[in-house]
Order: sequence, then C-alpha cells, then structure tokens
Amino acid sequence: MVAPLTVGIAGLGTVGAETVRLIEANASQLAVRCGRGVRVVAVTARSKAKKRGLDLRGVRWAKDPLALATDPEIECFVELMGGDGEPARAAIEAALGAGKSVVTANKALIAKHGLRLAKLAERHGGALNFEAAVGAAIPIVKTLREGLAGTAVDRVYGILNGTCNYILTRMEQEGLSFAECLKDAQRLGYAEANPSFDVDGHDTAQKLSILASLAFGTEVAQRAVYVEGISSITPQDLRAAEELGYRIKLLGVAVRTKTGIEQRVHPTMVPRASSVAQVMGVTNAVTIDGAGIAPITLVGPGAGGAATASAVVADIADVARGLRALPFGRPADRLKPTKKAPMERHEGGYYIRLMARDLAGTAATIATRLAERGISLESIVQRHPDRASDHGISTRPSSPVPVILITYATSEDAMRGALQAVQRDKVISGRPQVIRIEKN
Amino acid sequence: MVAPLTVGIAGLGTVGAETVRLIEANASQLAVRCGRGVRVVAVTARSKAKKRGLDLRGVRWAKDPLALATDPEIECFVELMGGDGEPARAAIEAALGAGKSVVTANKALIAKHGLRLAKLAERHGGALNFEAAVGAAIPIVKTLREGLAGTAVDRVYGILNGTCNYILTRMEQEGLSFAECLKDAQRLGYAEANPSFDVDGHDTAQKLSILASLAFGTEVAQRAVYVEGISSITPQDLRAAEELGYRIKLLGVAVRTKTGIEQRVHPTMVPRASSVAQVMGVTNAVTIDGAGIAPITLVGPGAGGAATASAVVADIADVARGLRALPFGRPADRLKPTKKAPMERHEGGYYIRLMARDLAGTAATIATRLAERGISLESIVQRHPDRASDHGISTRPSSPVPVILITYATSEDAMRGALQAVQRDKVISGRPQVIRIEKN
Repeated sequence: MVAPLTVGIAGLGTVGAETVRLIEANASQLAVRCGRGVRVVAVTARSKAKKRGLDLRGVRWAKDPLALATDPEIECFVELMGGDGEPARAAIEAALGAGKSVVTANKALIAKHGLRLAKLAERHGGALNFEAAVGAAIPIVKTLREGLAGTAVDRVYGILNGTCNYILTRMEQEGLSFAECLKDAQRLGYAEANPSFDVDGHDTAQKLSILASLAFGTEVAQRAVYVEGISSITPQDLRAAEELGYRIKLLGVAVRTKTGIEQRVHPTMVPRASSVAQVMGVTNAVTIDGAGIAPITLVGPGAGGAATASAVVADIADVARGLRALPFGRPADRLKPTKKAPMERHEGGYYIRLMARDLAGTAATIATRLAERGISLESIVQRHPDRASDHGISTRPSSPVPVILITYATSEDAMRGALQAVQRDKVISGRPQVIRIEKN
Repeated sequence: MVAPLTVGIAGLGTVGAETVRLIEANASQLAVRCGRGVRVVAVTARSKAKKRGLDLRGVRWAKDPLALATDPEIECFVELMGGDGEPARAAIEAALGAGKSVVTANKALIAKHGLRLAKLAERHGGALNFEAAVGAAIPIVKTLREGLAGTAVDRVYGILNGTCNYILTRMEQEGLSFAECLKDAQRLGYAEANPSFDVDGHDTAQKLSILASLAFGTEVAQRAVYVEGISSITPQDLRAAEELGYRIKLLGVAVRTKTGIEQRVHPTMVPRASSVAQVMGVTNAVTIDGAGIAPITLVGPGAGGAATASAVVADIADVARGLRALPFGRPADRLKPTKKAPMERHEGGYYIRLMARDLAGTAATIATRLAERGISLESIVQRHPDRASDHGISTRPSSPVPVILITYATSEDAMRGALQAVQRDKVISGRPQVIRIEKN
C-alpha cells in the first residue's frame, strides 16, 4: 500500500471548507480509486477562529500560505484563496519550485501568470491542475487537455458567467431592465456589491483565455481578449431577439480565423435552437467545434462551493493517481504567442437597432450606406415604439421610430463605417445598438 | 526525444480508416501534445484489396488480428472490428497478456467481458481505454473515470442511441408512426436492416452497463440491465406528452436506490425543460447527478466515423503520454457484483394511456383500484379520439374513449397490480400503455 497523498490547503472559504469536507466524506472511495489515500495534513486561512463547521483536529495550521507551500510534509498544495497577486502567486511558485504538485481554482491567477507557472511546473516535475478555474465541476479543462487530443479544435465558445446569464434570463422572461435584474442578482448573492467584474465581461474573459490556450495551444493571455459587457442590453433587444428567432447571451468565443485566433467576449445573438440558447439562469455551458465532427456541449453548474470543490478534489485525485498531464496539454515552451484580435477585422452578422427620424428617408439612406460597403441585409423590421403601441397611443409621424436590421456576414470595419455615415447623415437619433450574431 | 508510440490497428471500416487518417493529419499536434509521435506501423482487415482512400505505404499488413495483437513491434493494439466474440476478444486478450495497451470502440465486448479484460490489463500493466464505446467523441468515460473521482454519483442517465432518438424526434415533430420513421431511418443509413439491436434498447443497455460500472463501481454486466424498446410508442403518446409538459426519450438510467443500483433502459417521459429533452435527432446526451451539485450534461454526436475516431485517437494519445487510468476507475477486483434490478420494486411516476369503455364508470373503477394500493393521481385527462375530433365527427357514447393518467411516485408493483385489477373489471378495452416518468 502506497502512503496517502499529503495535502495542504490554503484558504478555507466556501470552496476550501467544502474541499476538506468532500475529501473526508469520500475518503474510502478516493483510496480505492487512487490506490492510496488522500489526507489533508495542514491548512491555513486568514482567521483561525472563524466557525466553519469543520473537524480540523489532527490538521496542523501553517502560519501563512508560503510556509504551507514549502512545508516538507506536503506533496500537493491546494490554493483556494483567489486573487491574481499575493499571497497566492508567491505560494504557488514556491510549491512548484519545490517540486510539489499544485491544484488551484484561481482563474485570475492562471489567466495572468499561467504560462510562467506552467513552465515552472514542467521544470520541477509537479502537476498544475486548474479544472475548477473554469466552469467549476464541468470537466471542460480535462476535455480540452486530454479528451480532444487528437482533434483540431475550430472554435470553443460558451456561457462562462452565471451572473450575466441569470440577469439576461430574467430580463428576457420578465421584460425587466438590466438595472432591476442586477439589483435582484445582488440581493440573491449572485452578484457582488461591485458587479463590474462579472457584468462587464472580465470574469468571462479570464476563463476564455484559459480555454483558448488549451484548445489552440496559444499562450494564455487575458489582455488578448476583446471584452464588452451586458449593461447596454435593453428589454427591447431581448424582445427583438425573440421575434427574430434568437436569444441574447454573454458569450466567450475563441475561434480560428484566417488572421489567427480571435478571442472575444460580448453580448451575442445565438439561434434559439442552439445548445447554448437553452441554458438558463446561473448554469454555464461550453461548446467545442472539432474539425469534422458535430459540436460537443458541456452544461452544468459554473460556480458554488460544492461544484467547485468537486473539481478541486478530482484534480487532487489525479495527483494521487499519478495522472500527470501537462498544464496546458502541450509543453509550455511550445505554446504560441497570442495577440489581441483586431475586432475591426471580425467577420460576422450583426443585429443593429436604431431610431429613425423619418422612416422612408432613413431606410433609403441606410440601404445606400450599407450597399456602398457591400453589406447585404438579411432582414429589416420596423417596430412601433413599445409603450406607445402597448397603450394604443398613436405615434406622431415625426417622432423617431425603432428600426431593426440583421446583416449577412460582413467585416466589423465595414459595418461600423456604414453606421458612422448614417449618423453623419443625421437620419437617426441617438447611437445605434449593435449586437454580434454567432451562428452554430 | 522519446521514440514514437507504435500502433497496430485491427479493422479498417469507417472508424478504422478515419483513425488512420486522423493520426496522419494531426501528427505534429500529437507529437507536441504527447511528447512523442504516434505511428501506425501495422494494420489488418478482412479485405486488403478494398479501396479506402488511405495511403498505407510503409504500413505492414498483419496476417490476422491475433498476429497483430502479439506483434513485438506494436506497443498499442487498437481494436476496431466490433463484436462481442472472436476474433476481437482473443486478440485483445493476447495484446493485454503481452503487456501491451489496448484501445477499443467495442461496446459489446466491454459490456460482456469488460471485467475480465480490465483484470488482465491491470495484471500486465497495459491500459484498456474505451472512450469511443459510449457516446463516441462525448468525453463521458473520462468524465466518470477521472473528472468526478471525488464526487459520489447518485444517477447517470441519457440518450445513448441516435437511431431511437431520431425516430422519436420525427414521430414527435411530424406525427408519424414508429414504422414510418423506422423505414426513413433505414433509408438514411441511421438504422440497420435488422433494427432490433437499436430500437429494442440493447445498444443502449450495453452502453449503460459501462457507464454504471464507471459511476458506481459495480461490475460491468449487460444482463443486469432491464430493457424495453420504443416500438410500442405511438403518435398519441407523443402528443399527450407534449400537452402534459413532457417529451418521450429512450433513456438509459443507472441510479442508486435503497435496494441497490438500478439499471434500466426504456421509453421515458422527461420534463420538457430538462437538458435531455432538448436533444433532438441523432445527437446523444448524458446527465450526471453528483451528490450535492447541480446536474452536469454532456451533449454531442454519439456515432459516426469521425466522432468515434476522435475518441479513439484521444485514447491512443493518453497511452502515448503515459496517462494510465484504471479501466473502470477502480481496481477491477474491487468492483462490486451487480444484480439485475427488480423492476417490480422500481419507484417512480407513471404515464398510463388506456381506452375506457364508458367514461364515468371507468373513472370510478380506476380511482378505486389505484386508491386500494395507495396510488395518487397527479392528473387525469380524457382525450377525444383524435381523428374523430379533428374532423368534427361526434363520438358515440358507447365507443371507447382514450384516458390518460399521470400518477405520483409509487412502486411498479402497485401500479401493475392496479392495472390488472382494472382489466379484470372489464371497464377498459385492450392493454394499457405505460411509460415511466423520470424527473430531473
């Protein structure tokens, strides 16, 4: 019988406490599966006094994360503190530098320093596992790292932030505004007091950068991701999407294009029949388009203590069993440099909602401006101002009328140029709303 | 640089040929990912002359599968011939006995001899990988074997046969009969000339027995699976399902119950909002309920040369990298004996469609018979005979009227007993249709 794997856990918040509990509750199953036990021998956290409902008798308290990371009794260092800086970074570097394996749920740190950490892990022979960093218990990291080793990935995209999907779902189902739904999400604990990290797309961008690296063999780099959040989405947009056979989701998309790997996060029109369109509330989903095969979609809880801890313990079990994959599925020094996708060269269809000052004249002007740039329209819909028609109030001919355009695939550059020309023509009032369309 | 992994492939049908092609097309990616190349050095197939569009120069032809399996130059034997008997079985045993690793897509063989083969692999140190045997490129084997190592699985269920799902989808969407849709499926190549293996549920049962073993640590045993096919499903059932908020799918379900692990394959009413209800056509899907976490669903192509070969190559890549998990995620001699679930003790809700000779009297009789056995009704719907109502023809009071019952959870025993009593009371004509309900 091999001696148990000795584990040290830094951070005993919701995920950390649940990890300790899960290892304890599944001790015998883990021992059978791994051929050796898994034992938490030391922990550290900001407060030793805090009540966590954990039985930590027989577990040592390390004085700080760095001391735990370099503790000679520890083989596997589990970092569950979060944050892309200290003390997480120094502790992980110290553990890897000492040849230990590291398991972390820290997406921010992997998105920022993943390349350096992977090189360190490879140099010293430890594992660096981070399944929990993206989509919690959804096994997307393992699937991209190992399950599709023999298939070229053309695109990976998905709903990676439960807060945004919760807000968009409620806006769609109840016709509420972004601000109202955000307030509810905060009340229910789905959104932070400062919601920017979630609703402005940065959380999604960090996760996407990790998936892109695994899928395409590029260096993980959050700065290479184009980011746009959901705060500009209105109930009108969601209603128009429904009428046109779409739903609006905040997607992270990494796709192989003629000009390189494009990584982008933005509100997206997806066909109602697509897998990701079915995903509601806080659930996450990732779709992988592999060369020559139908899409594979993984759906599940993208956050929460138990779901995240499940992935952390699976990563620890891989360490115990000696299943040692390279952190990004390829040697870190073979990952290719990543550059930010020039969005002006993005090619795709667009949803455009604008307020026409005068319907006949505006339609002619828009048609001309689009045609000048070779852009074709799939559809054009004039919508009555909602409140006015809802209440039977007749609209004065001179008040602006909402018009919705759906373009065929074109370059973003051409589309933006056409809209600027239309604005210069002064036939519309306000700024047009633009949402990219992603076909499945 | 480590020498390339030497591979021998037995069987050059659609999957075998696609595997050769994929290894060739992704040679450099595989070498980077695995730290060594993957090289097909020998093959064997029934006909050497058959045109396959493959460049097999430099690849030796072995005289038969057994010779290939024991070829000293081969490290990894890939079995893509199929069939639960010879020559596949003897060849795999020979390869494992010689300490080689084996990759196979053969669900029938794993369902029948998986336990013995796993023991053999463990004794001699080779891998036995069979991701392609269930759900083709959907990484369900890896997810259950490794990704959920630290989570107790309560239930795993899904749509594991594309032919049946194609037939049920068309029946639902077009109101066609089972026989009509089966004919179309055969014409399109989705169903065999002898369709029994698919439509009677045996294909699903083989796959389910493999998933159950991985999820629950039971010995793989197809004979432990209760099986019922889809040939009795009518357009009326599909219409009723829609009206009641369900869809009908052929599910394989393995679930932990008070009396043990229940494994069953049968047409099932699933809530329309569930993930599996969204899966249409030949697509497959598997949902895993892990203790304490929201369900995880994996969706994708469950068959086809390219999708199956993708999983085969991923399994080969794991061998090349030295990622060696136990075949069933636990030592084979620790797997627990499996016994057939006594379906009479199954607990769940039921959809029951019957033809009442006389509505008022029948309703009273049924209510009495169910109440005698403590069964409560969630709903009771009297439906006009469809054709009659469609054409405005009034139904004579004396002709039988379709009645649909939905019960709350009860034991199968009690439900069958109540229906037999109702039949003895002679208030219904013909045999009732019964479909189990699976809640998500």
